[in-house]
Amino acid sequence: MTKKIKPSILPGFMELPPKEQLIFNDIVSKMSKVYEQNGCMPMDTPLIEKEEILLAKSAGETEKQVYRIDKEKNKQALRFDLTVPFARYVVQHMNELDFPFKRYQFGKVYRGERNQKGRYREFYQLDIDIVSPRKLDITNDAFVISLAAQAFESIGLKDYRFQISNRKILSGLLEMLGIAEQQEVMGIIDKYDKIGKENCIKGIEELEEVINTVRLLGVNEQNLRVELKIIRGLDYYTGTVFETVIERNENYGSICSGGRYDNLAELYTDMKIPGVGISIGITRLFFVLKEIGFVGSYTLEDTLDYLISPIGNTLKECIEVNQALQKQDIKSEIYLNKDPLKKQLSYADAKEISTVIIIGEDEVEKGQLIIKNMKTGEQTKVSRKEWLKREF
Amino acid sequence: MTKKIKPSILPGFMELPPKEQLIFNDIVSKMSKVYEQNGCMPMDTPLIEKEEILLAKSAGETEKQVYRIDKEKNKQALRFDLTVPFARYVVQHMNELDFPFKRYQFGKVYRGERNQKGRYREFYQLDIDIVSPRKLDITNDAFVISLAAQAFESIGLKDYRFQISNRKILSGLLEMLGIAEQQEVMGIIDKYDKIGKENCIKGIEELEEVINTVRLLGVNEQNLRVELKIIRGLDYYTGTVFETVIERNENYGSICSGGRYDNLAELYTDMKIPGVGISIGITRLFFVLKEIGFVGSYTLEDTLDYLISPIGNTLKECIEVNQALQKQDIKSEIYLNKDPLKKQLSYADAKEISTVIIIGEDEVEKGQLIIKNMKTGEQTKVSRKEWLKREF
Repeated sequence: MTKKIKPSILPGFMELPPKEQLIFNDIVSKMSKVYEQNGCMPMDTPLIEKEEILLAKSAGETEKQVYRIDKEKNKQALRFDLTVPFARYVVQHMNELDFPFKRYQFGKVYRGERNQKGRYREFYQLDIDIVSPRKLDITNDAFVISLAAQAFESIGLKDYRFQISNRKILSGLLEMLGIAEQQEVMGIIDKYDKIGKENCIKGIEELEEVINTVRLLGVNEQNLRVELKIIRGLDYYTGTVFETVIERNENYGSICSGGRYDNLAELYTDMKIPGVGISIGITRLFFVLKEIGFVGSYTLEDTLDYLISPIGNTLKECIEVNQALQKQDIKSEIYLNKDPLKKQLSYADAKEISTVIIIGEDEVEKGQLIIKNMKTGEQTKVSRKEWLKREF
Repeated sequence: MTKKIKPSILPGFMELPPKEQLIFNDIVSKMSKVYEQNGCMPMDTPLIEKEEILLAKSAGETEKQVYRIDKEKNKQALRFDLTVPFARYVVQHMNELDFPFKRYQFGKVYRGERNQKGRYREFYQLDIDIVSPRKLDITNDAFVISLAAQAFESIGLKDYRFQISNRKILSGLLEMLGIAEQQEVMGIIDKYDKIGKENCIKGIEELEEVINTVRLLGVNEQNLRVELKIIRGLDYYTGTVFETVIERNENYGSICSGGRYDNLAELYTDMKIPGVGISIGITRLFFVLKEIGFVGSYTLEDTLDYLISPIGNTLKECIEVNQALQKQDIKSEIYLNKDPLKKQLSYADAKEISTVIIIGEDEVEKGQLIIKNMKTGEQTKVSRKEWLKREF
């Protein structure tokens, strides 16, 4: 039992020290609030699903990266995105949903990617999707993009650039050139020609409407770019597709991607359920935000908070003061280890707690508190009764 | 492609429809707020860890239930609790933590249990732990239990019962009887006798102090019981141990358990890092709360929210009204599919949206809005400018 194990995590996994975790959580909570405020419902699905569900539709390159579970006879794997489980969820819970159904979801997904800067094997996605049986107007495509913009703005991020395209344009062009994606090249060329042109034009029209509506929804011109080369790796997209980069940091790849999928639920139902979704890669985003100094200069809202320091046998009184503060919705904690005051103060200092309330046996006797301002170092004795009466 | 797959999830996994998910999230958010208010820092660790980390210390029965990952040469598995990764985290990030370090963590864990009511294979835990190098006063044991009580009270749950014991009592008794846990039975009996008695008495003293301090911290008498038979399955506990049941529903098992562990980090370091923790099994708790009707009668805070219904070509004006509302922190959404008003209203109805703002081309021309109260059915025309000026 004396040989020690080196504490470490697997390569490709992110883990944060508490102060960065606070910022990470603040980012997620602000973005989630944007989605909630816009009527998206929360959703959660298992991390492990049957392989027949996850891999029913070819996931392209992603399929090779799937994490498989070694357990029982059911073939199981970890989800590689939140969209495939979402399609399954929608059909399974069809009767419990109100359509158009807007959901947001925050959760981890797994891809066995090669180790690379900004690429993680376990990473968080924060997704929105909107689906509705039979039809879903193209304005929804613009809407989800505008929500991503609002999410970025909510954390003060301005240097992002949406790169938007429509798959029909490129596939229409390819069809016109006779190089049908479907590899059925030797069909009747002029038929393809016609379909290709129609598809290509439909794509251009849709793209135009998306861009116009995104503008109408308040997204700034400088955050928008039409980029016809964008097609997305996942096979399920059928119309609008987009990626998002941080200006001057394009090399880190897309931090928010998505698009329109008209047939994702076809594996489970004959009903057509078109949808459109976006996914913010929160883990990669956080990595990039650290790299560019955004995390370093991120300011968390100042919280009024207190450390209550018992000196001697004053735990009972400390508990009473603590309860009085917390009733007023104030963050406060009692230092519970019997350490010298100096150590207690340096704990408050390290944790950036603004005020320490010192309660010794003398204070208890006189009904007083010592209030120490940790910024100025100033220390005052106050009447406990009076002090607790004030508005915080 | 015509053969359909039945959309389903694996047995032993929980998935909720949106309205229950809202309640689930509300419960987690209220409990987390209790922990944050009491100075606990947020933490997150990978779901997948090296097997040598997860299984270094015998996990008892749990070890057989571990989900293993079939990927690469590194032996990997899914975490089966949040405590073992926490011990690893503490040693790995030692220099970035402020001690006594209090953390809370919400996350999924995995155990391949037999399928049984209220037992899940994937379930959420909401944990608090406090650790400090060298010593951690016994008041911390009481403190974490009182936080669990506050967490329950925060959601209006009153029928819980802590069953508290101390491992030293039972192991001391066993030692005194010569049936040392360590199976070194044939040692010098009277030496064991002495150690056993000391240990047993120490356990009783600790238990007494924990119970007294828990009371002092405001936990009600009727929620507390000393229950010497509690020992907990996990091997790492060394002192205080406790479980929590819902009164009259004891058969569902414990919904919140934990205890003192003095040596959990010994695998990674020579430094002694005592700790104490609790874990609320949120998934099981939610299951029990559904069974006993608590979820059914759970009331979410009333949110003032709006559906904005465009009739005709009025998207631009709907967006403006939406932006004005959201600037005031109000939840609102535009109905984006070009559906008849009737369908839009039934969407609002199903989603329990209190007010619908109808904007037709006529209203745009006259600078008006139609405000429909969904509870009374009442419908009034108002000046858009005036209406948006009011305080919400």
